Amino acid sequence: MADAAPGPLPTLRALSPAGSFAARHIGPRPAETAEMLATIGHDSLRSLVDATVPEGVRDRRPLDLPAAADESAVLAALRERAEANEVFSSMIGLGYSGTVTPAVIQRVILENPAWYTAYTPYQPEISQGRLEALLNFQTMVADLTGLPVAGASMLDEATAAAEAMTLVRRAGRAKADAVFVVDADTLPQTLAVLRTRAEPLGIGLHVADLSGGWPDDLPEAGAFGVLLSFPGAGGAVRDHRALAAAAHEAGAAVVVAADLLALTLLEAPGEWGADVACGSTQRFGVPLGFGGPHAGYLSVREGLARQLPGRLVGVSVDADGAVAYRLALQTREQHIRREKATSNICTAQVLLAVMAGAYAVYHGPDGLTAIAARVHRSAVVLAGWLRAGGLEVAHEAFFDTLTVAVPGRAADVVAAAAQRRINLRLVDADTVAVACDETTTPEILALVAEAFGVPGDPDAARDDDGADALPAGLRRRTPFLTHPVFSAHRSETALMRYLRSLSDKDLALDRTMIPLGSCTMKLNSAVEMAAITWPEFAGIHPFAPAGQTAGYRRLIDELCEGLAEITGYAAVSVQPNAGSQGEFAGLMAIRGYHHARGEAFRDVCLIPSSAHGTNAASAVMAGMRVVVVACDEAGNVDLADLRAKVERHADRLAAIMITYPSTHGVFETEVQEICAAVHDAGGQVYVDGANLNAMVGLARPGRFGSDVSHLNLHKTFCIPHGGGGPGVGPIGVREHLVPFLPGHPLVDTGAQGPAVSAAPWGSAGILPISWAYLRLMGPDGLQRATEHAILGANYLAARLREHFPVLYTGRDGLVAHECILDIRPLTKATGVTNDDIAKRLVDFGFHAPTMSFPVAGTLMVEPTESEDKRELDRFVEAMVAIRAEIDKVASGEYDREDNPLRNAPHTLAMVAGEWGRPYPRSTAVYPVPGLAGRGYLSPVRRIDQAYGDRNLVCSCPSPEAFAEPEPPSAPVGRVPGRGEGAPDDLGTTEDVVGAARA
Amino acid sequence: MADAAPGPLPTLRALSPAGSFAARHIGPRPAETAEMLATIGHDSLRSLVDATVPEGVRDRRPLDLPAAADESAVLAALRERAEANEVFSSMIGLGYSGTVTPAVIQRVILENPAWYTAYTPYQPEISQGRLEALLNFQTMVADLTGLPVAGASMLDEATAAAEAMTLVRRAGRAKADAVFVVDADTLPQTLAVLRTRAEPLGIGLHVADLSGGWPDDLPEAGAFGVLLSFPGAGGAVRDHRALAAAAHEAGAAVVVAADLLALTLLEAPGEWGADVACGSTQRFGVPLGFGGPHAGYLSVREGLARQLPGRLVGVSVDADGAVAYRLALQTREQHIRREKATSNICTAQVLLAVMAGAYAVYHGPDGLTAIAARVHRSAVVLAGWLRAGGLEVAHEAFFDTLTVAVPGRAADVVAAAAQRRINLRLVDADTVAVACDETTTPEILALVAEAFGVPGDPDAARDDDGADALPAGLRRRTPFLTHPVFSAHRSETALMRYLRSLSDKDLALDRTMIPLGSCTMKLNSAVEMAAITWPEFAGIHPFAPAGQTAGYRRLIDELCEGLAEITGYAAVSVQPNAGSQGEFAGLMAIRGYHHARGEAFRDVCLIPSSAHGTNAASAVMAGMRVVVVACDEAGNVDLADLRAKVERHADRLAAIMITYPSTHGVFETEVQEICAAVHDAGGQVYVDGANLNAMVGLARPGRFGSDVSHLNLHKTFCIPHGGGGPGVGPIGVREHLVPFLPGHPLVDTGAQGPAVSAAPWGSAGILPISWAYLRLMGPDGLQRATEHAILGANYLAARLREHFPVLYTGRDGLVAHECILDIRPLTKATGVTNDDIAKRLVDFGFHAPTMSFPVAGTLMVEPTESEDKRELDRFVEAMVAIRAEIDKVASGEYDREDNPLRNAPHTLAMVAGEWGRPYPRSTAVYPVPGLAGRGYLSPVRRIDQAYGDRNLVCSCPSPEAFAEPEPPSAPVGRVPGRGEGAPDDLGTTEDVVGAARA
Repeated sequence: MADAAPGPLPTLRALSPAGSFAARHIGPRPAETAEMLATIGHDSLRSLVDATVPEGVRDRRPLDLPAAADESAVLAALRERAEANEVFSSMIGLGYSGTVTPAVIQRVILENPAWYTAYTPYQPEISQGRLEALLNFQTMVADLTGLPVAGASMLDEATAAAEAMTLVRRAGRAKADAVFVVDADTLPQTLAVLRTRAEPLGIGLHVADLSGGWPDDLPEAGAFGVLLSFPGAGGAVRDHRALAAAAHEAGAAVVVAADLLALTLLEAPGEWGADVACGSTQRFGVPLGFGGPHAGYLSVREGLARQLPGRLVGVSVDADGAVAYRLALQTREQHIRREKATSNICTAQVLLAVMAGAYAVYHGPDGLTAIAARVHRSAVVLAGWLRAGGLEVAHEAFFDTLTVAVPGRAADVVAAAAQRRINLRLVDADTVAVACDETTTPEILALVAEAFGVPGDPDAARDDDGADALPAGLRRRTPFLTHPVFSAHRSETALMRYLRSLSDKDLALDRTMIPLGSCTMKLNSAVEMAAITWPEFAGIHPFAPAGQTAGYRRLIDELCEGLAEITGYAAVSVQPNAGSQGEFAGLMAIRGYHHARGEAFRDVCLIPSSAHGTNAASAVMAGMRVVVVACDEAGNVDLADLRAKVERHADRLAAIMITYPSTHGVFETEVQEICAAVHDAGGQVYVDGANLNAMVGLARPGRFGSDVSHLNLHKTFCIPHGGGGPGVGPIGVREHLVPFLPGHPLVDTGAQGPAVSAAPWGSAGILPISWAYLRLMGPDGLQRATEHAILGANYLAARLREHFPVLYTGRDGLVAHECILDIRPLTKATGVTNDDIAKRLVDFGFHAPTMSFPVAGTLMVEPTESEDKRELDRFVEAMVAIRAEIDKVASGEYDREDNPLRNAPHTLAMVAGEWGRPYPRSTAVYPVPGLAGRGYLSPVRRIDQAYGDRNLVCSCPSPEAFAEPEPPSAPVGRVPGRGEGAPDDLGTTEDVVGAARA
Repeated sequence: MADAAPGPLPTLRALSPAGSFAARHIGPRPAETAEMLATIGHDSLRSLVDATVPEGVRDRRPLDLPAAADESAVLAALRERAEANEVFSSMIGLGYSGTVTPAVIQRVILENPAWYTAYTPYQPEISQGRLEALLNFQTMVADLTGLPVAGASMLDEATAAAEAMTLVRRAGRAKADAVFVVDADTLPQTLAVLRTRAEPLGIGLHVADLSGGWPDDLPEAGAFGVLLSFPGAGGAVRDHRALAAAAHEAGAAVVVAADLLALTLLEAPGEWGADVACGSTQRFGVPLGFGGPHAGYLSVREGLARQLPGRLVGVSVDADGAVAYRLALQTREQHIRREKATSNICTAQVLLAVMAGAYAVYHGPDGLTAIAARVHRSAVVLAGWLRAGGLEVAHEAFFDTLTVAVPGRAADVVAAAAQRRINLRLVDADTVAVACDETTTPEILALVAEAFGVPGDPDAARDDDGADALPAGLRRRTPFLTHPVFSAHRSETALMRYLRSLSDKDLALDRTMIPLGSCTMKLNSAVEMAAITWPEFAGIHPFAPAGQTAGYRRLIDELCEGLAEITGYAAVSVQPNAGSQGEFAGLMAIRGYHHARGEAFRDVCLIPSSAHGTNAASAVMAGMRVVVVACDEAGNVDLADLRAKVERHADRLAAIMITYPSTHGVFETEVQEICAAVHDAGGQVYVDGANLNAMVGLARPGRFGSDVSHLNLHKTFCIPHGGGGPGVGPIGVREHLVPFLPGHPLVDTGAQGPAVSAAPWGSAGILPISWAYLRLMGPDGLQRATEHAILGANYLAARLREHFPVLYTGRDGLVAHECILDIRPLTKATGVTNDDIAKRLVDFGFHAPTMSFPVAGTLMVEPTESEDKRELDRFVEAMVAIRAEIDKVASGEYDREDNPLRNAPHTLAMVAGEWGRPYPRSTAVYPVPGLAGRGYLSPVRRIDQAYGDRNLVCSCPSPEAFAEPEPPSAPVGRVPGRGEGAPDDLGTTEDVVGAARA
């Protein structure tokens, strides 16, 4: 029973918990680390790293970052920064409104790892829950805007407007130099981003006051589109019907930036002429968060669906013909088509779209209408008081925002409101704007009246029954949110259960490793997530006065300093709110640099053939011509080809975009030579930071030759993927590019480049996550994490190599932080595809690795540092078992079509029903003993991607589509299949049916 | 497409969200309410209530409570109260220590409805997750105390000590007047509760300084036990070995109140003579919460297991012989055996025990030891500084607490510390005590030194390598937490997944209605839960100075006022931290009242035969004799029998305990006559508040004849059940009983009665939940909730009546808020039992109703107001389908043994394996179409209760017990069955094997 005699106790220094978090973030225990090292033939992490990272790029100077702190200390430090922010009632408006996040939505979605740690639903079978949640979002947007097809969210309103601009341009038949007309009454940040995006594409913007009608001073080529706001930035609700007709008459498409809440009271843009609608869903329960993240939206009329950028959830069927959801039209945009791309958007704002959709489910059409009525009535009451007090309120028709003339005393009014802890908007010295929202109470209205110097009585406000101030003939008559989902879950109990039932259908990090190469699905720790819902971070308007946001500014500065130290750059901007935005911002900085030096002719961007598709798309958006550089057999950039391309395009060379370590998962040794060659020709080097997780603490791109990088905070720096967003894509630049970092039209960000996002600091609301990660890990912990990321990938490569060839390796046969398993030979021999393997992994309870990127027919595996050896060994066990199944196909023991791989994933309905397959049911769902009981079964069989694209349905299917389940063939229900009443293969038709509105 | 023209907008008053929460808490929408009313033949809730609640008890005066507020307003009001508390570093000690709740545990357990909305694991098949979590807790306690059997938690340390006292008394063979010796160095609140509990049972307490050895001044009958503290309340760690031997020599059992954290460094009490250990697990990551809730613990040596009060999780096997967990020895205590009971404990502190167990899983033996070493080294360093400064530190051997002599200036030292935001303990004018804990840093130590006026240097502290201050020969040598579970989940990722895998095995309110009669499983809303983890509520020591707890005191006063208004009593005490404690406290108030009036001879307590078993147990504990009153055929108290019993016992009549509405779910019309009869005989009336959910806003027990009631805040007032605790059981009393409400030895609670719990306001930390509920609902909402609770029960009764007879009804065939379905005729005809029905409901995704209470062979159903019609209809569909299955058994279509009812619940392993049953697999898991896809399958088959009781194993089974799963018969694994190496039926043996230590 008794152990050896206990020794002396350690010192308090040795016992300090300060560095304890790293051991929670990093999966393997020290003994496991040793075993893993032994498996790959190294005796220390140092030796492994020395063998993996080329000496040329290695940076041995320790990171100069604050020392690691424990969870309590980091929470205390965050609390200190939170308390340096001041939460006022925000009546600034301009696209950002106070809102009430229902507590059940905050707890069950925003604070629940089952939702926030999920990945993008590229594997639809294990993503049915969030796909349904996104379909609710799409249905909500489509219904409210009166346009039948809405995407699964955009990054923000401003970029949604920019995407709308390019969408109507490419969909129309206007002349190349036709302009885009923008109503002057547009949100200033939207206008700024439109300018940023239009300029490199050579699109002329024609900004004009359209209240007088369609402009008569357009250039000869005319206009390909127009952007109208509904309501306008100044608050006016204008009847745009005549204008829309005139625009159509002139061959211009009509884009309407609309407030979805207002649309519960105002007729849907789709009913009065809009071809496209865009905007934000922030006020549907998503916290202000100092500017984001929020879900922007984009919806289009019939015929434009296939032009939609970004992700689109659609309805399809599974192998039994049962209704199943998946991303539609992926071949179009999802896997960005390099230089042919029309948008670089990959990331959506899934977590926020899920919240906004849940808000609509929670409130329903009547509840949303009541909120809108309350907001509007508040504005009407206030307008009445102001007018009774002799002040001029600019517009007769408005929804929530009043523009008030206070000649010479606007600053005083704003200051008086601030004394009452209310922020108004200072328009100019003579004008103040006031925006009402869901949080506006009669008491707040009375304080605002006080600030204006007029009387206001809250009790009188409550019983004021004055008329509305909406334009005659524009009150909404079109029904919306008529689908049962928007009325079935209105008690908290019902909503809680509905949300749980959705998340239970999905696999996220809280149940399994997600070994997605290039995606870095590491731990999103609970303590990192804690602060983002604190009111002092969540409740701040992006344009709040600087004096109220000192805590945020300090935190952002510290984060940027930390990221600059890690990457070796001079400065970092956090404005880009997705990796794709970061790429665009980085290339725009390069563009700005060349232009500033009088070398605007530099427009060639070299991109290796192994690059992420977004690289090329971003280059096109930044006005560059893409030239592809070949890769050699080892997967590295072909230096000879590079030199040839550099030479050929030297005069026009703008940049090269490379990923390091490469997308093949290898530390290329020639990276410095590549950089030097480009620099020598006058080009700039862009290192894509997607794989930074292999470098933190070991190498700094800003030091080994790169001029600019974007970082994916949602990869290396622990922002959760949220089921497909938010992403955060800051850029770091060397000194000479600092002036070209993104600026902002309304807020001084310390930089002067073009704005790329709506908010000055992008998705500021979630930056506390990455800030906390850096503080928790400290310099040593960060480096240790990197070392373990490399260790994990090499361990898997070593264990799996004999079963599946590892495609590319660097020195000593080592990989970086991910490895590519080549399935092609097995496919050729047996017909078993990487898709079959991916789906079969679901039966083992695993999320699939990345498929067919960067090489078709392969699987790319990235375990990250957060997976312990036990989970890695389970994955190996699964993959080895799958290989054995493939061998049975090869040997003929398994039929080539009817086998566990091809039939995967297996469902409960399958095993509970008639069987008749040449392998037992237990093989289907208990493939190996050690992996049994992971407690997950796919809710649907394999999904037919093509069927859904041919029969495009992108809003909630009617309940009738879900017939009563008849196991075994249709557990969830059936939609009419071909020959059962549904149209036959629609082939090339563009038509789309919004089922909820049909 | 277009609707009718929109009408004018409502006023702001009509649009106010103030009362909106009630519609979220209450399940049915207005249209559903109307349909449900129609089903039972009423046209309004008013008419239903008038028909249900007897006019005599009806109280039509509206509740005088604050008006309903919306979620935001209630959060703001809670924030205001939170900010009126001051969070200092607490070094007060006395059984409550600062601790760090790992963020992952807070988020994944404490803030997760899958854990906190679960019910007590009486249905083990759908509770395997929390049963495993509790087994971890038990293993942790058993290991650390060195005693092989630990229960699944006690209410707090003080009541655990009281239970230990009565346990050793009944287990031993001492004379009836033998005393219980208590070391004077015992926590004052423990001593107070021991006194409270000893007095009515006639137990003499002999409190003595035992540092000199076994007392020689005991009464002739000797002692049946002794309570030692390890460490003592003053901080001394004494070597009790000789004392324990002397006690045993004298025939006294040894109870040790031990600090589990200290036991990582100090030898386990079980190794040096303890028969029983008790204490608190609060410092294992459970917030201070101003006193609770925390999990107390109790562990015993071999041979005493069957004496353990409260719940005990044990290992058994399922129908396939696979390892499965369930509550052990339930026939012993769980269903309290009325007057034969030895304890009234029903509730455990499951949620907190789960947290403490998870804390041990997270830290493991090495991590816990390191924390203990840090705490101890902090105390050693401080002692060194104090001694170097010339101060006298009382004890040479201590763990975390120092008692320091500061003649004449103790108050000054405490004040100086308070200026530094540190609370020390003022022992007396000359003495200060300082307790170190997990949150103590060298910087805090230096501030404490400053307060004492001596120098202290944090940096020197870190590198001080002074010796420990533990008694020689008592350093721990016994290994602990050697079970793999305590080393397998040490990364956050691993722990997150482990906890999710556990909760996924269970059914809680976030997935299904839990229609448990008498348990009132209503919504625990997210907004109600929000504040309890705020530091200003979570971080307060129960003995913090009043000036720092103004917010708590205000909130508690407001809550008590609200509860008094609702119940019609003069005052309410929230000290009882479970319903059982409330019963005891209420009866003690009655006892105190009689004694104060010189009528100590009144000791008869009348209890109807339909009463909760705890009633009788509480009466026995309060020194009363139980006399049972018969019930008539309608389930009501038999008035004739009552009058006879009152007459027979009039001289000694102390009280009657009745439940209203009755445990039969009926509003008895004669309740006032009953009360009057008892009052006329000089007795007091105790109305058990278990069924208060049928009365709020409609009737007040304090007005219709009751003198005292306990309320179950975890039923009517939305404290979540937590999987079997925390419970909160305040009592309300009429004016004459106010002086007898619970007091406290250290804190002025405003009352002078005997202390029943360790903390002055019991589980104060979760009172914000009930406070929020009252504010959110307002008087109208509360009444509407009650009306809907009655509506739901009557709707179910009406729908189910033709399939299962409803056993008891009141006027017009109506029930109150629950109804009893009589299964006995069906059982008699077919052999199908209520157990079969309960298990079959699992296949439909439902938690079973209450079984065999208050009538054996029945099911009691209570839907609560929170279930909407859709969920009620689903339940009806399931019950009707089950009835059809029973009919097939009756008709012989189904075999009497091999049918879907008897084989329920069905598992994935069953349907994936060989079948051979006379019904298809799809019938097993898709019993009806409308209920399919609820996404839950039991992880185990039906559990053999008796096997586990015969082969009692109450700590984690070794991994070897889980053989590789071999579907179909053993999905989870197997433990050796009889004839396979395990001992045969052990019959009456008391022996217990702690597998983890075997």
